[in-house]
Amino acid sequence: MSGNTFGNLFAVTNFGESHGPAIGCVIDGCPPGMLLGESDIQRDLDRRRPGTSRHVTQRDEPDAVEILSGVYQGKTTGTPICLLIKNTDQRSKDYGNILETFRPGHADYTYLHKYGLRDPRGGGRSSARLTAPMVAAGAVAKKWLLEKYGTTFRGCMTQIGDIVIPFESWDHVSHNPFFAPAADVSNLETYMDHLRKAGDSCGARIRVTAAGVPVGLGEPLFDKLDADIAFAMMGINAVKGVEIGAGFASVMQRGTTHGDSLSPGGFMSNNAGGVLGGISTGQALEVSIAIKPTSSIITPRQSIDTAGHPAEVVTKGRHDPCVGIRATPIAEALLALVVMEHALRHRAQNADVRVSTPDIMNQRA
Amino acid sequence: MSGNTFGNLFAVTNFGESHGPAIGCVIDGCPPGMLLGESDIQRDLDRRRPGTSRHVTQRDEPDAVEILSGVYQGKTTGTPICLLIKNTDQRSKDYGNILETFRPGHADYTYLHKYGLRDPRGGGRSSARLTAPMVAAGAVAKKWLLEKYGTTFRGCMTQIGDIVIPFESWDHVSHNPFFAPAADVSNLETYMDHLRKAGDSCGARIRVTAAGVPVGLGEPLFDKLDADIAFAMMGINAVKGVEIGAGFASVMQRGTTHGDSLSPGGFMSNNAGGVLGGISTGQALEVSIAIKPTSSIITPRQSIDTAGHPAEVVTKGRHDPCVGIRATPIAEALLALVVMEHALRHRAQNADVRVSTPDIMNQRA
Amino acid sequence: MSGNTFGNLFAVTNFGESHGPAIGCVIDGCPPGMLLGESDIQRDLDRRRPGTSRHVTQRDEPDAVEILSGVYQGKTTGTPICLLIKNTDQRSKDYGNILETFRPGHADYTYLHKYGLRDPRGGGRSSARLTAPMVAAGAVAKKWLLEKYGTTFRGCMTQIGDIVIPFESWDHVSHNPFFAPAADVSNLETYMDHLRKAGDSCGARIRVTAAGVPVGLGEPLFDKLDADIAFAMMGINAVKGVEIGAGFASVMQRGTTHGDSLSPGGFMSNNAGGVLGGISTGQALEVSIAIKPTSSIITPRQSIDTAGHPAEVVTKGRHDPCVGIRATPIAEALLALVVMEHALRHRAQNADVRVSTPDIMNQRA
Amino acid sequence: MSGNTFGNLFAVTNFGESHGPAIGCVIDGCPPGMLLGESDIQRDLDRRRPGTSRHVTQRDEPDAVEILSGVYQGKTTGTPICLLIKNTDQRSKDYGNILETFRPGHADYTYLHKYGLRDPRGGGRSSARLTAPMVAAGAVAKKWLLEKYGTTFRGCMTQIGDIVIPFESWDHVSHNPFFAPAADVSNLETYMDHLRKAGDSCGARIRVTAAGVPVGLGEPLFDKLDADIAFAMMGINAVKGVEIGAGFASVMQRGTTHGDSLSPGGFMSNNAGGVLGGISTGQALEVSIAIKPTSSIITPRQSIDTAGHPAEVVTKGRHDPCVGIRATPIAEALLALVVMEHALRHRAQNADVRVSTPDIMNQRA
Repeated sequence: MSGNTFGNLFAVTNFGESHGPAIGCVIDGCPPGMLLGESDIQRDLDRRRPGTSRHVTQRDEPDAVEILSGVYQGKTTGTPICLLIKNTDQRSKDYGNILETFRPGHADYTYLHKYGLRDPRGGGRSSARLTAPMVAAGAVAKKWLLEKYGTTFRGCMTQIGDIVIPFESWDHVSHNPFFAPAADVSNLETYMDHLRKAGDSCGARIRVTAAGVPVGLGEPLFDKLDADIAFAMMGINAVKGVEIGAGFASVMQRGTTHGDSLSPGGFMSNNAGGVLGGISTGQALEVSIAIKPTSSIITPRQSIDTAGHPAEVVTKGRHDPCVGIRATPIAEALLALVVMEHALRHRAQNADVRVSTPDIMNQRA
Repeated sequence: MSGNTFGNLFAVTNFGESHGPAIGCVIDGCPPGMLLGESDIQRDLDRRRPGTSRHVTQRDEPDAVEILSGVYQGKTTGTPICLLIKNTDQRSKDYGNILETFRPGHADYTYLHKYGLRDPRGGGRSSARLTAPMVAAGAVAKKWLLEKYGTTFRGCMTQIGDIVIPFESWDHVSHNPFFAPAADVSNLETYMDHLRKAGDSCGARIRVTAAGVPVGLGEPLFDKLDADIAFAMMGINAVKGVEIGAGFASVMQRGTTHGDSLSPGGFMSNNAGGVLGGISTGQALEVSIAIKPTSSIITPRQSIDTAGHPAEVVTKGRHDPCVGIRATPIAEALLALVVMEHALRHRAQNADVRVSTPDIMNQRA
Repeated sequence: MSGNTFGNLFAVTNFGESHGPAIGCVIDGCPPGMLLGESDIQRDLDRRRPGTSRHVTQRDEPDAVEILSGVYQGKTTGTPICLLIKNTDQRSKDYGNILETFRPGHADYTYLHKYGLRDPRGGGRSSARLTAPMVAAGAVAKKWLLEKYGTTFRGCMTQIGDIVIPFESWDHVSHNPFFAPAADVSNLETYMDHLRKAGDSCGARIRVTAAGVPVGLGEPLFDKLDADIAFAMMGINAVKGVEIGAGFASVMQRGTTHGDSLSPGGFMSNNAGGVLGGISTGQALEVSIAIKPTSSIITPRQSIDTAGHPAEVVTKGRHDPCVGIRATPIAEALLALVVMEHALRHRAQNADVRVSTPDIMNQRA
Repeated sequence: MSGNTFGNLFAVTNFGESHGPAIGCVIDGCPPGMLLGESDIQRDLDRRRPGTSRHVTQRDEPDAVEILSGVYQGKTTGTPICLLIKNTDQRSKDYGNILETFRPGHADYTYLHKYGLRDPRGGGRSSARLTAPMVAAGAVAKKWLLEKYGTTFRGCMTQIGDIVIPFESWDHVSHNPFFAPAADVSNLETYMDHLRKAGDSCGARIRVTAAGVPVGLGEPLFDKLDADIAFAMMGINAVKGVEIGAGFASVMQRGTTHGDSLSPGGFMSNNAGGVLGGISTGQALEVSIAIKPTSSIITPRQSIDTAGHPAEVVTKGRHDPCVGIRATPIAEALLALVVMEHALRHRAQNADVRVSTPDIMNQRA
């Protein structure tokens, strides 16, 4: 509970700093007997990797993962899986003046007040680089959930700055650097090029979804599935809002509209976003998150120094002009970790439950 | 971690069902030596109580709290505080046909699939009645935080259905049944009367805020203050969205706008909502939540029965036409529980930290 | 984790004080669908109850348990089970002088230093009376384990003061007030009568065992089954030592003797006490505990008062001259809670494990 | 809670296998601002290291620790400290036949039944080699406790096989390979040489103690300081018994003897072992543990193979003939981790407690 472990039964402990020798995580609680190799994990890491287009940070990190433990002869043993990712392109000189001033929108001020000291190199522990081990852990969860329940996770960008991105097809998502579900992203490229030249940044909205989630996951009062999803999403760097299903639009819905009707063939809509009373319905989980604009911009900002005197701050270095661009695989990973945790927790208590009523979403056949 | 305990150091374990003999909670970890009586808790319970206006459920519950343990000679002893609230107005006959069908928007379907059986009386464990013990626990947290740090919690309704409620003054909130920060709520009353007659329900948006929060609360990676707030809020019955600070509006903000500038006199705006890098800045915490329309409506809805056959459902009984109306004190309580937990957690690790840089929000003098 | 909850998946939160209005617990995580009534629990409570012989405290408590939640139509629902036991025979005047002095062997001194205040009535929270709710919770765990795996729990006294009690038969245990496995306990009665008249007290040794424990329970490194048993047993009031299997006798054993040989028909001895590498073997769990002599004695003792000055302390009131006498059902209950927790935890991770090698203790047939 | 994390506020997550590429741990929750270098940790690791005398395993491991995170410019930052120890002398061929048979006294049988597969190389995860990262983590806890409270930890062997070792002086402990508090250990050397030649092994008894522990650490009901010590000690490989203070001798003590009297100058004895009611008294913590004889012996043993057929097992390879010999620094480390956890937990709840009554053991001056 010291803030760096996610989950209880599938517990992922994250360590490292942006410019330290390595980052990584320890996964405790993975079911045994699953085939697992580094390539299973590398795929998702590569989707999140920096330097893959001109629209993201140019830091050059291969983000190559090593499995240090928990796998024997290609199979998980049920004991802790340590995943290590070495940092290779630290340039701490880029961050020289950060130690004396507080960058607006960054954690500099809060870390110093909390701990009395801070690692300024690349944001230290507060860097979004620490999402890489989460993507790695999420890949392990995804693999198990796919093999066990057929669960699949997908995400896409639905808005960047002022531009709402129309949903055309999931097929497009992997063919552009924005994870946009649209065939033509030239307007997004132009928009980002303009923003970068202006020394500014923008926010984004990401949608993430899980299909094939078994009915019954989630706890009734506090560890609701949607509450844990909100926790996971809001914990991603720069996230300022989370919606499940109809989200904020539900404020203006009527009860006659919002409550999803049931038929023998399944639910007839999904305003619930796949969760009722904190427990999965068997429908797709539907999550939407708001990501704030990158705080690291080269436009000068008004701030103070550590002595409390006024100071102007310019953040040089290599940064994403929109941190939302690489957020899609991160959000997918976190969603997978939440579902994984609840899948294990559910069967701990309810493995013996037999229900005669049909599972209308066909999860249990 | 079985889903009915909130918090770790200030841990609140909730028990009971809507129509059982009693509901309540056990608070474990309360600091010792604080004066505490039932009246300290009753005040907030009375704000949440049903039956106080024609716009909420007419169930008649005094919600009188009894302290069963943890207080000796009027002071907390540091050992578990058991709070008991007896149910007095159960009318289970109102819910007769619920057991055979699944009400759209309700947890009937998911509970049955999770547990194999369910308590249908008033929604059983999934009833919003179970927020009463949370309000009670929140009152204890509020009292400690006020005495220790001067922290105060406030909330109000900012939208009900289609009607956006202008913020005029906090003073109005306690003078109308909607927790509206406006002097004249006649339009809200008309709106709700109309809705009730139409056999329909609507959603709401609630704002909740905490002032006087010390700088430094929250953990860096997962147990971020805002992540825990999102967890707490999304766990409240019917909540479908959570925002911190600028929330979803941050998607369209530029970095030059969003990042709150600092001056020797304090932060110059609060897009962050009081949290940077998951850690409190010392500014007010600003949270907004979306509450879906009540699922219990008398308009017939299409559904299925437990055998999987089509069935029409009409939900009679006593219900809130907008569950958001009574949500304000609940959201305040949950926010208080989150801050309390982090206040204790922070000093566990960081009690010895001394910072020479000024606390610009004046929390630490 | 605030010290009053036992277990994580089958989590028992205990509340109350010796002389408050009530004591009790909340069980969170009980599997649903189990028949459960108050009589299932009362049986074990009655075995622990005070006042049943002249050798234990004469406080008259019926220890009648009420189920306040979590059971619907006689079956567990999977939601929290609150068990309440009202205190009926508080005589706080008996404890008048305790507040100003520290009784040797008692928690008076430590509670005051920890919390700054303490509830002196009957020892407040530190009273062994708080084991009653644990016995109640243990009864629920026992019932589930019996129905699911055929697991049974038994305990007996093996030594009281200087007298080693020969093991004759489990049948005798329920026929004498000492839980002695011997037909004739007249020597124990004489011993205790003498001790009581002398105003002194003595210790005891208790054996507790579980048969029919499935193979595979326990975690490899820290949450080992034997480690959790040690935690549970040492947490019982007055316990000063815990042994698993051969225990301290293993110091003088040779490896050729200690390591239990295996044959196709099973293990050929049980020096391990049913646990290897922290994981259950399928043999009986064998646990032995040392209980210190009761600290509450009428013989004057040297101590200090709260100002730090020398003071003589005499502890009047109603006390067990050997707290070990009523410890057997308590130790059984705690053992059951440990096994229950691990049974749920095991299947969370390993529900899919299929082993082709035979279970030589026939647990899985 | 998946079995590989020790502690909650000072949480140590352990990973690795005996013959994998590396072992290590992540410490989460270390207070910030403490000077910490690898040499602070290496000292204790060297005390536990194999190959330092002919009486322990001849595996040649430098056990050199690397700090991968959590330290900036020589100081802890409050974020996770990852400690890595590379394995350098794996000879897995030594363990060829282990996979098909179950070694008596080993975890082979239980791991296979729990997980369905197991890593046989050097015992895999069940190897005592995994205590190395715990010793490393314990060194960090020791340093903080020493600097904050002046707490010191010491341990020694008090019995090996049949030989009770007289306590002469702590000074001798570091001058012999047995951690014996005696000047002349020639009898122990002869004993061990004889045993090794006989292809057998023996058990040991270890005493571990902490001085300068603040009064008030420990929780009242379940997370008692002594319960957590018992948990920690019983979790060490091969431990079969744990005593606090008078331990099993208290069974035969009278109340007039056992209860430690108080005087203005302090407690007058320490039968309690430094804990009353689960909370530290300020006296030295006194713990004694029983360690079973090494299960890996070259004398043939009767067992079965994975098909369930009879098989004879001979365990070759490099082993400690008495695992107790290297247990002293391990037990010290675990005791330090328990005290550290409770020190942080105590101040989370009770940082504001002020007591006017004197601390007779002078911990708080």
